[in-house]
Amino acid sequence: MPSFTVFKGAKDGRPVKSTTTRPDELTGDQVYMRITASGLCGTDLHYKTADMALGHEGVGVVEQVGPDVKGLQKGDRVGWGYEHDCCSRCQECLKGNETYCPQRAMYGYADLDQGSFGSHAVWREAFLFKIPDNLSDDAAAPLMCGGATVWNALRAYDAQPTETIGVMGVGGLGHLAIQFAAKMGCRVVVLSGSDGKKAEALRLGAHEFLATKGQKELQLSGAKKLDRLLVTTSAMPDWNLVLPLLAPGAVIHPLAVADGNLEIPYMPLLLSAISIQGSVVAPRHLHNQMLEFAALHGIAPVVETFPMSEEGIRDAMERLEKGEVHFRAVLKN
Amino acid sequence: MPSFTVFKGAKDGRPVKSTTTRPDELTGDQVYMRITASGLCGTDLHYKTADMALGHEGVGVVEQVGPDVKGLQKGDRVGWGYEHDCCSRCQECLKGNETYCPQRAMYGYADLDQGSFGSHAVWREAFLFKIPDNLSDDAAAPLMCGGATVWNALRAYDAQPTETIGVMGVGGLGHLAIQFAAKMGCRVVVLSGSDGKKAEALRLGAHEFLATKGQKELQLSGAKKLDRLLVTTSAMPDWNLVLPLLAPGAVIHPLAVADGNLEIPYMPLLLSAISIQGSVVAPRHLHNQMLEFAALHGIAPVVETFPMSEEGIRDAMERLEKGEVHFRAVLKN
Repeated sequence: MPSFTVFKGAKDGRPVKSTTTRPDELTGDQVYMRITASGLCGTDLHYKTADMALGHEGVGVVEQVGPDVKGLQKGDRVGWGYEHDCCSRCQECLKGNETYCPQRAMYGYADLDQGSFGSHAVWREAFLFKIPDNLSDDAAAPLMCGGATVWNALRAYDAQPTETIGVMGVGGLGHLAIQFAAKMGCRVVVLSGSDGKKAEALRLGAHEFLATKGQKELQLSGAKKLDRLLVTTSAMPDWNLVLPLLAPGAVIHPLAVADGNLEIPYMPLLLSAISIQGSVVAPRHLHNQMLEFAALHGIAPVVETFPMSEEGIRDAMERLEKGEVHFRAVLKN
Repeated sequence: MPSFTVFKGAKDGRPVKSTTTRPDELTGDQVYMRITASGLCGTDLHYKTADMALGHEGVGVVEQVGPDVKGLQKGDRVGWGYEHDCCSRCQECLKGNETYCPQRAMYGYADLDQGSFGSHAVWREAFLFKIPDNLSDDAAAPLMCGGATVWNALRAYDAQPTETIGVMGVGGLGHLAIQFAAKMGCRVVVLSGSDGKKAEALRLGAHEFLATKGQKELQLSGAKKLDRLLVTTSAMPDWNLVLPLLAPGAVIHPLAVADGNLEIPYMPLLLSAISIQGSVVAPRHLHNQMLEFAALHGIAPVVETFPMSEEGIRDAMERLEKGEVHFRAVLKN
């Protein structure tokens, strides 16, 4: 059987090159791709010691298609993300919420033999996204998970152009959230530790920037409080600092993967009708919508590129762990 | 100036009889009522040591109206609840969310000289609710806060007749939540410590009853999980027991007043798109809707009555503190 390169987690946390096989003949709606780029996401760090192929922000070029493929052909540029398959029959799938299908095939849980760190991949056409022409491979890759996570928080929960949106953290997710929300017409308020990222946040579309470190109280410039807060940091904010910024009925979206419990003062939640909304990446219909929106508005991740090699992956991971990536690492073949 | 009787909190937690004055002449849309009944709510216990008039689930008969009163006249039966006034000009008021007006006049914070434990009261017509003819005083009183709290959770957040609704706790709030949700067409699943209240919960409209105490795992009879969970107990449930019962996208409504932090496992919230929604009592348009709905469907609180006197109030409070009230205490003049 033919084979291709993948990069897997390893016990010592230093990913290694490996190979995996591909079927001689593609069946059903399988698509065989040559990988051109992959984003590196915080979740990949969680699996760096696991015996599995890494990467889930893939972009590639179609090389071969299975007999049931309808909309893709050789040479098409496609991307894929966290989910590879679903049952298509449960209520969640029927509602277009296949990301919550009980049989969802997700990165880290299914299809562990391949990822987006590697030379090639085989995925179902049903879970591939055509990349608009004016989105480069580098720009498209981080949208496949990071972008899809913040876009889903905004669109699956009906954020309105008239809202004031708070974005906590300016990193892989946060710098995309700023751009999406600003282009949706929202007023965007960024909360970040220091002033270090202020100029760039404003350039990306933020209207206001609050540095939180060492503050006892935060003050918004206008009377309008935050209708929504996207928490893109894995550490939760100091709620006593942040809750007073929220408008009645505000929605808090915790987006990063984290262990343990979520803990938040109880009565302020009730007295201001605050809600906390869990979510994952976008389902496919919203993912396609995100790509169109990014293409229309020239929204592009700010990326640092690394070679798709053992060394490149290790370097990128090390920088991500130190919080030094500006703002998303992309591995390139 | 004329005066009337109120019952106030006292340092030793044993409410005492007192008097308060009323204006010689009613102004604006003020209405002077003779109180006939008042519910006793958990929140009243929080204020039993405070130097303020107690009670906020009032029902009375109009005795006199101010010059700007438009829709009430002597002899009308009216009720009132937690909120007595608002600014009528802020965005929340304009949206019909006056319960979140920054200037909301709420029980415990404003108008401390009178409540619903007493002989009479003076309130603005704007915050009085006409009681439908087929709702008795006893039935109407507990709806003014307890009913309005659970109704708001269901109606302000668009609970659908096709949902499965979990109700945690069968007490003052829970036994009303069961009735409202059942009459809305929902499938109702009750979670309670023991089987002690099972028969009554089923009689009130529950379709399923789960006793939680000592259980390691809870099992629903059908495949359909809970779309919504109303937590009417002030103690939060054991989330490891309850979260597996929730459908993707389920909403948790914590309704009781409690101190400290809300704490809940973080990742299950994200992976199943669970949300936690804070809220208080219903705004006026939903409060009126609740009274109509209760009248149409013969929804009635199950009450124990006590005399409106120092002794009656103390007895009722003692029973409520012990969790013995079945299911709402009503004080009667």
